[in-house]
Amino acid sequence: MLSFESDYVEGAHEQILKRLMETNLEQLSGYGTDPYCESAKEKIKAACGCKDAEVEFLVGGTQTNQIVIDTMLAPYEGVIAATSGHVSVHEAGAIEFLGHKVLELPQKNGKLCVEDVRKFTETFYADGNHEHMVFPGMVYISHPTEFGTLYTKEELAQLSAVCKEFGMRLYLDGARLAFGLKATDTDVTLTDIAKYCDVFYIGGTKAGALCGEAVVFTGGCKPKHFITRVKQHGGLLAKGRLLGVQFDTLFTDDLYGKIGEHAISLAVRMKEMFLQKGYKLFIDSTTNQQFVILENKKMEELAKEVRFSFWEKYDDEHTVVRFATSFATTEEALEKLDSVL
Amino acid sequence: MLSFESDYVEGAHEQILKRLMETNLEQLSGYGTDPYCESAKEKIKAACGCKDAEVEFLVGGTQTNQIVIDTMLAPYEGVIAATSGHVSVHEAGAIEFLGHKVLELPQKNGKLCVEDVRKFTETFYADGNHEHMVFPGMVYISHPTEFGTLYTKEELAQLSAVCKEFGMRLYLDGARLAFGLKATDTDVTLTDIAKYCDVFYIGGTKAGALCGEAVVFTGGCKPKHFITRVKQHGGLLAKGRLLGVQFDTLFTDDLYGKIGEHAISLAVRMKEMFLQKGYKLFIDSTTNQQFVILENKKMEELAKEVRFSFWEKYDDEHTVVRFATSFATTEEALEKLDSVL
Amino acid sequence: MLSFESDYVEGAHEQILKRLMETNLEQLSGYGTDPYCESAKEKIKAACGCKDAEVEFLVGGTQTNQIVIDTMLAPYEGVIAATSGHVSVHEAGAIEFLGHKVLELPQKNGKLCVEDVRKFTETFYADGNHEHMVFPGMVYISHPTEFGTLYTKEELAQLSAVCKEFGMRLYLDGARLAFGLKATDTDVTLTDIAKYCDVFYIGGTKAGALCGEAVVFTGGCKPKHFITRVKQHGGLLAKGRLLGVQFDTLFTDDLYGKIGEHAISLAVRMKEMFLQKGYKLFIDSTTNQQFVILENKKMEELAKEVRFSFWEKYDDEHTVVRFATSFATTEEALEKLDSVL
Amino acid sequence: MLSFESDYVEGAHEQILKRLMETNLEQLSGYGTDPYCESAKEKIKAACGCKDAEVEFLVGGTQTNQIVIDTMLAPYEGVIAATSGHVSVHEAGAIEFLGHKVLELPQKNGKLCVEDVRKFTETFYADGNHEHMVFPGMVYISHPTEFGTLYTKEELAQLSAVCKEFGMRLYLDGARLAFGLKATDTDVTLTDIAKYCDVFYIGGTKAGALCGEAVVFTGGCKPKHFITRVKQHGGLLAKGRLLGVQFDTLFTDDLYGKIGEHAISLAVRMKEMFLQKGYKLFIDSTTNQQFVILENKKMEELAKEVRFSFWEKYDDEHTVVRFATSFATTEEALEKLDSVL
Repeated sequence: MLSFESDYVEGAHEQILKRLMETNLEQLSGYGTDPYCESAKEKIKAACGCKDAEVEFLVGGTQTNQIVIDTMLAPYEGVIAATSGHVSVHEAGAIEFLGHKVLELPQKNGKLCVEDVRKFTETFYADGNHEHMVFPGMVYISHPTEFGTLYTKEELAQLSAVCKEFGMRLYLDGARLAFGLKATDTDVTLTDIAKYCDVFYIGGTKAGALCGEAVVFTGGCKPKHFITRVKQHGGLLAKGRLLGVQFDTLFTDDLYGKIGEHAISLAVRMKEMFLQKGYKLFIDSTTNQQFVILENKKMEELAKEVRFSFWEKYDDEHTVVRFATSFATTEEALEKLDSVL
Repeated sequence: MLSFESDYVEGAHEQILKRLMETNLEQLSGYGTDPYCESAKEKIKAACGCKDAEVEFLVGGTQTNQIVIDTMLAPYEGVIAATSGHVSVHEAGAIEFLGHKVLELPQKNGKLCVEDVRKFTETFYADGNHEHMVFPGMVYISHPTEFGTLYTKEELAQLSAVCKEFGMRLYLDGARLAFGLKATDTDVTLTDIAKYCDVFYIGGTKAGALCGEAVVFTGGCKPKHFITRVKQHGGLLAKGRLLGVQFDTLFTDDLYGKIGEHAISLAVRMKEMFLQKGYKLFIDSTTNQQFVILENKKMEELAKEVRFSFWEKYDDEHTVVRFATSFATTEEALEKLDSVL
Repeated sequence: MLSFESDYVEGAHEQILKRLMETNLEQLSGYGTDPYCESAKEKIKAACGCKDAEVEFLVGGTQTNQIVIDTMLAPYEGVIAATSGHVSVHEAGAIEFLGHKVLELPQKNGKLCVEDVRKFTETFYADGNHEHMVFPGMVYISHPTEFGTLYTKEELAQLSAVCKEFGMRLYLDGARLAFGLKATDTDVTLTDIAKYCDVFYIGGTKAGALCGEAVVFTGGCKPKHFITRVKQHGGLLAKGRLLGVQFDTLFTDDLYGKIGEHAISLAVRMKEMFLQKGYKLFIDSTTNQQFVILENKKMEELAKEVRFSFWEKYDDEHTVVRFATSFATTEEALEKLDSVL
Repeated sequence: MLSFESDYVEGAHEQILKRLMETNLEQLSGYGTDPYCESAKEKIKAACGCKDAEVEFLVGGTQTNQIVIDTMLAPYEGVIAATSGHVSVHEAGAIEFLGHKVLELPQKNGKLCVEDVRKFTETFYADGNHEHMVFPGMVYISHPTEFGTLYTKEELAQLSAVCKEFGMRLYLDGARLAFGLKATDTDVTLTDIAKYCDVFYIGGTKAGALCGEAVVFTGGCKPKHFITRVKQHGGLLAKGRLLGVQFDTLFTDDLYGKIGEHAISLAVRMKEMFLQKGYKLFIDSTTNQQFVILENKKMEELAKEVRFSFWEKYDDEHTVVRFATSFATTEEALEKLDSVL
């Protein structure tokens, strides 16, 4: 059955599989010390316009959030996130599991407001009892957010400023960054992200890799003995080449950008299809995830023809569902979707 | 340069890459709920001769040890292991990181002695203060061990008995199980392992997979909400198919067995080569890792021609080094090695 | 200077010090195995009307919350609490430090609403992705709450019912229980609490002890090897007598009840004083903590004569402050307070 | 029955109880911010001859070891300790519970050898795989040791030197320091300890306090936001005065020294008694704990008259037991012991 369930329902971009085949029998050293990892790191630093950046590869998104947050925070620090942030709700408590509170602030279109962050932090330091409370040590944002929305360059600049003012680090979860960078209305580039964030990750899994996320530390903030800590978290791959070759391919001839463009162009058409057919969108997303409010009966009918994700109950008669495009979505698939809407 | 550094220096067995290619564009549900995972689990249960077993896939060895031990132990329990056990020395403290003490007992040829385990446990319960101590809750063994040695069926039976007697679980780390099962002198089968162990894992990474380990729980001992806990540990892959397709391939037409046989047959020849040329072996291994005592000068010379692993200092003039064969080792490579020894 | 800052500004009730003196040179076994601990446990069980209860002593409130929650929850479970709950804000993240998320729900007069708890839990189990989320395993309430308010017997019964329905435990933090039990308008007795809660603690520190809290487990729910876990958490006192003698004294001739009555009777008068002098109360508390909204200028003046606690900013010109009575508050002190209001 | 079971079988020194009574109704601020804590800290710094030291009070020994080690180590670091060290065996895994491996080295008379520490650390850094291992970050010693033995000043100096060389901190567990400082043959003073150790604690519980240990950080090594971390560990007392008053008393007119002298002088006589009556000592202790090898039958007889601690099995017919003196041991008690030996 046709599926728009997510951007991780297919395997890998063919270029990636091709390179894995070509390099398969080369004898390479393990644990990320191979030349493909090295080359991929250099290409990512170049793409970020940030020579001083340090890049490390991890396997999946929750693992990356957990390791980045745990290794960059002091034990007495927590991380500020929107109530809808992935770390707040959909990681089975992975952040708390390693000892850190997620300090949840309201989401607005899936985003944190800089005013809320500022007010929370000011109130914290103004409280005479704050030594009995969890120190805010980091601000977590996802870009695109879990609702497919995006921060503007100005918002990133302001978040960065408030972080600097209060000694917090700014961390951007880029699980779907490929799509954020190619959204029709964004003014945020990879260089901007590297400029404003202390640390961020460039998602591979949801952008055509079999697995893998590239963490980029700027300003020399990579934690000491990071590899040892990754090992201690159970996140170090023996065959690090699996990540190196994939990211080296994604950042060769801008494949990462092309994957983003492909998914976005199809998402734009999908969005138009929904609007033309009179569907109501739950939120105005310009990225590869589209959130549609379906009448429950319609939802059941559609579910017989196409797979999508349940998002949340809207009211007693409507449900919010998600349709996503990916590196592998075809025009043909879109046309089929159109025919069943 | 020719490398016998480890069994993870090459990528994946060609059958695995082929299957990844063939299935690449199938749209599959995520997080291990796809049909390839399902099929692989059934094949593994059949190979273990254990219908009631429950199988789960994880990404790497340290992650697997960490998750299995952490989820199966009560918080007040530790795990008994040999001083040379992987969990004791080479996992950056991953077991302690999640709260559990590794209760180290002496190794003999890399193995735990059942008598030592019994004595330790009896002494523990006889101690009037044992409520102020760490309860032994599990026995960890690696098979093959870190020195390439193997337990006998009788030893497994005895370890199992002492575990049952004291309410401990027996856990076998099978990172290199493929080679253990095909060693020339072993009387231990996969069925035996499933019979005697409460939990064990069948290593993929070191046996021709890009990554992946298959954990087998017997006797209904899989921890409750295991998937949630894997997620919480940062170990859940979105594209679970990557593990499912690989293990489905490894357990189709006994590819896993063939990989083991291949590496073992070459290791046997390699061992003979060392002995014929008068090299002294550090330990008598019948698996794919061979430990050779080299004069330091000879070691430096050899290092110009071939890659191997430093193992440990033997004395001021000699060093123990390791040579390993893998799924991809060729006869041609062995001949080259022979020519430089 | 006169202080109404808190209920822990004085040492211990004189009866407690007297008993510590009298028993001082008796040679007693350590770690809570002495006869005073035993006797205190029996008296507490009698006072709770719950023969099957199991009682254990811990040193302080945050330690108790941390140990009870950590030892009673599975690793994949979190604890539901009001946003104003002590575990949510004023324990420096002690709950998350040991791996558990505090699932925060809105407070109403400092209390959790049973409807909110039900809705949260129903939504959780209805969510198809709940295996990727933190399971609600416990409901935490404080009685009196951090705002001095109280649950009714009916509310406890309803919370208990929803907990049973969804397999959660109900935990009552009784740091100031002495005052809750003697509030002028409460219909909740110690027997009710033992009936409806799976676990609760009877606060000593804030009710006239030097330190110490008595945890009461009902229905056989005391975690296995609890003493070992307390030791592992660093909470086991060598001289357990310090807790045993204190609680034995508090539960002899109902000293605990008398301390509660004393503080409440003075708090009632203090509240009347505030109202008579035209002060506005922030919340209607019937326990030993009174929250008063002061004009900022008035607050500064008062602060020269008497100590009280800053609670929170009310608006730009007003502040909420707290005045508390204790076992040691005197009528004379109240009169002095009256004279400076 | 007469008890020599331990040094914590009685309550507190009478001077301490007296001061608790005298100060009982003073209204003091909480959480260690009262003037008695302040005064006690100053007196301890003076006693250590170390103006720059920072002193903090905690409640018990295991809690202190756990908090000191956890807050001073990086997450990737473990602590070196003797196999007989309290942290290695008798704290229910409290160190591992918070994530740190105890790197156990052989004990000699209960002590760590500086040569063993040096060799272990050199081997660690020489190992090419040490990034996959637990970094040694601290050396833990107890003084007196669990066997009542003592380090010499020269040994402390050497341990300090090897720690400095390899970037490790030296931590001395002084649970029974009162007795170590007054041993007949020691050349180690409190000033020496403050000079050579980065952190140590002066035990109160076993030296006449109801509870309480004073941690002394030298060289500015107190962890940042230490109070917040103590709170997060569940170790912060609301009525901090309980610790402040006790340590203020112990360090007034050298009560701490007098308590040590008293227990030692009686222990010396007790040791002579054992030797005169032909008992064999297990180890030559010059502190307040004496370890005697008893024939099992004799042990059973003695146990009817006097309480002592089981230590360990010596052989099938003999057992090692411990007799301890305390601040409260009387000459009369010793005479009674003499009469039953």
